[in-house]
Amino acid sequence: MDKTRRKLLQGAAVLGVASRARADDNLAKNLPPNVPEWSRTLGAPILASPYGVPSKFEASVKRRESPGLTRTPHSSVAFTPLQNLFGIITPSGLHFERHHAGMPEVDPHQHRLMVHGLVANPRLYTMDDIVRFPSVSRIHFIECGANTGMEWSRVAVPTVQYSHGMLSCSEWSGVLLATLLDEVGIDRQKAKFILAEGADGASLTRTIPLANALDDVIVAYAQNGEMLRPEQGYPLRLVVPGIQGVSSVKWLRRLEVGEQPWNTREESLHYVDLMPGGIHRQYTWVQEAKSVITAPSGGQVLLDRGYHEITGLAWSGRGRIKRVDVSTDGGRNWRTARLQEPVLTKALTRFRMDWSWDGNPALLQSRAIDETGYVQPMIRQLRAVRGTRSIYHNNAIQTWAVDATGEVSNVQVL
Amino acid sequence: MDKTRRKLLQGAAVLGVASRARADDNLAKNLPPNVPEWSRTLGAPILASPYGVPSKFEASVKRRESPGLTRTPHSSVAFTPLQNLFGIITPSGLHFERHHAGMPEVDPHQHRLMVHGLVANPRLYTMDDIVRFPSVSRIHFIECGANTGMEWSRVAVPTVQYSHGMLSCSEWSGVLLATLLDEVGIDRQKAKFILAEGADGASLTRTIPLANALDDVIVAYAQNGEMLRPEQGYPLRLVVPGIQGVSSVKWLRRLEVGEQPWNTREESLHYVDLMPGGIHRQYTWVQEAKSVITAPSGGQVLLDRGYHEITGLAWSGRGRIKRVDVSTDGGRNWRTARLQEPVLTKALTRFRMDWSWDGNPALLQSRAIDETGYVQPMIRQLRAVRGTRSIYHNNAIQTWAVDATGEVSNVQVL
Repeated sequence: MDKTRRKLLQGAAVLGVASRARADDNLAKNLPPNVPEWSRTLGAPILASPYGVPSKFEASVKRRESPGLTRTPHSSVAFTPLQNLFGIITPSGLHFERHHAGMPEVDPHQHRLMVHGLVANPRLYTMDDIVRFPSVSRIHFIECGANTGMEWSRVAVPTVQYSHGMLSCSEWSGVLLATLLDEVGIDRQKAKFILAEGADGASLTRTIPLANALDDVIVAYAQNGEMLRPEQGYPLRLVVPGIQGVSSVKWLRRLEVGEQPWNTREESLHYVDLMPGGIHRQYTWVQEAKSVITAPSGGQVLLDRGYHEITGLAWSGRGRIKRVDVSTDGGRNWRTARLQEPVLTKALTRFRMDWSWDGNPALLQSRAIDETGYVQPMIRQLRAVRGTRSIYHNNAIQTWAVDATGEVSNVQVL
Repeated sequence: MDKTRRKLLQGAAVLGVASRARADDNLAKNLPPNVPEWSRTLGAPILASPYGVPSKFEASVKRRESPGLTRTPHSSVAFTPLQNLFGIITPSGLHFERHHAGMPEVDPHQHRLMVHGLVANPRLYTMDDIVRFPSVSRIHFIECGANTGMEWSRVAVPTVQYSHGMLSCSEWSGVLLATLLDEVGIDRQKAKFILAEGADGASLTRTIPLANALDDVIVAYAQNGEMLRPEQGYPLRLVVPGIQGVSSVKWLRRLEVGEQPWNTREESLHYVDLMPGGIHRQYTWVQEAKSVITAPSGGQVLLDRGYHEITGLAWSGRGRIKRVDVSTDGGRNWRTARLQEPVLTKALTRFRMDWSWDGNPALLQSRAIDETGYVQPMIRQLRAVRGTRSIYHNNAIQTWAVDATGEVSNVQVL
């Protein structure tokens, strides 16, 4: 540990907390720590849960819906509690949800994937067929294009769960879409786009550019080591790395190869950026570089002065994160954060920075820079180009204000 | 895709399955795939599960106890279903379990970690104290020293869940033990070992060499993005990368710094290798390089001839996996498998190899080589040195036999 961090830690120790005085008292008398009841009895037998679940003390860590965000619970969003999470993997049970006609319960034995259109050999695959193909496993984030949408028009929601929680990261396993397209034999002269269709009641459809389809798109059946969860598309979904989440079609049942984008409902009525002057920006595929501090973040409280680790997540739809800078004074001064290895392409990257809080108000910000050199913008820079009517593709720098009592809240620094 | 793999896939397509004929029939008539009921109705509303769970169709994917393995369900093992898993992350709900006095239900608000012994400033930490320290997140495997123990004496258990399922891999987050030891100020002249004690009814204790403690040992509070699961040591455990699992003490309540190994119960009565000539090998820390094919594996059936992907896991307690070789003829010929990137130190590494099954009996084996050059041995090589009385540290090459009907079973090739 370097000298600076050590000094910070000693600062924290000196200020301490009330309970430590009694603890040190025990230590001085050579007494063991209090022996709790659970150290004096037999615990639960093995396989208390054949499939394990979190501790009852963690019951507040759950996905949450933003009340009134949508008109029906079948077409809505449940947000990931980023403020409670560590590392880069999102537990599958906490992966954000976005459904357009509710979550179907798909029987994998009946499920089929049709691949047709501009192909030499159209196919209808069973799940047994799909899992026999050569497979890959890759860690990628999925972010809804509407993530952080509320902040466009200065509606600062209270917590990072609601401001950035349409974001999750998993290890996905499946077959590369390129492998399937190779087997069906696409028409290399004409084929330019793929239509993906889900088996939900909405028959959600999205156009995918062929360049992506032949690059890193995964027809995935597994997430974080096991088969997909029902709300994540069981038994089959697309994962389109770096592209807005709606393209990663869940409950995938059909892939059609064609020449033009399809302009389907979710490509024309929704997922369109309303720009200044009445212009609509359609097919904004890429999720640009972005970051957010998850601790300390809105709704949290710093228990005392001294050492705190500032930590958060950075990601880019264009590749790897190169650097993350952190400011504690609203962007006047920046320091470079530590990045947790491995830094993977189109995956969340955990960053950390040491900070000693002196008890004065502070403005915490993070700024991501990806391997293309793209720098995460300020909200005023985004607004200058795109106005304030959009709800999509807000990748602005997020500001959390710490007040003198240690309370953290969401503010906008223009 | 290279030519060889393409040819294999075409082979599979030619042989096909019965259902495909009908599917191709539909496609020829330009009919869509059958529209299932779940595509014609609303699905479940958002937050059907605020904390998600697997599909009901995956109910057979669960941890399992080996009947009669131990005398009580409070001191037993539940195995991870490796045959059903993908990638390298083990879902936390399927991480193998080993308890010595059952699973305690620890209240994190009452939990304390004592650090004392040869230190300048003994401490009693609350969980709030622990999570304030600078943190790390790293992907590591944990393998019980007794994993694959049954195979020592030619008891070939039926599935990879029972033969190798005391093995799991997670992204662990917490504070490096080195950081805590730095804060309490260990006696650099005398200190050589650390004793770790759990808060379970067994007060399980293990000695950790100081070299490990100062290197990569994590005092972990999180697993795969969220707080630890109760059966994995909630709210605090050690993770000792590369060392036999019993050292990664769960429900961690005490760390003592000392000069000598403690020779505690779990270091002298158990977790001792019985060698030829009545010799006991104690403190066998490191889990040497090892691998196993998880598909096809014991109890599975090849549905037909043609292309199959052979896949499995490789790992080494000494660092990164350098290479994995696969044989389909009982070790006469070997081919090099593909390794899934990123290949991480002391983590599981997923390997894959293309194979076309010709319908004849086959003997499938994998052989791991780590970055130190260590080559995974044959069981006869292990027996020549260590005899047949041990149950620990069997890292021999595993053989799965495929018979002419496609059934896969566990056999021993000496």
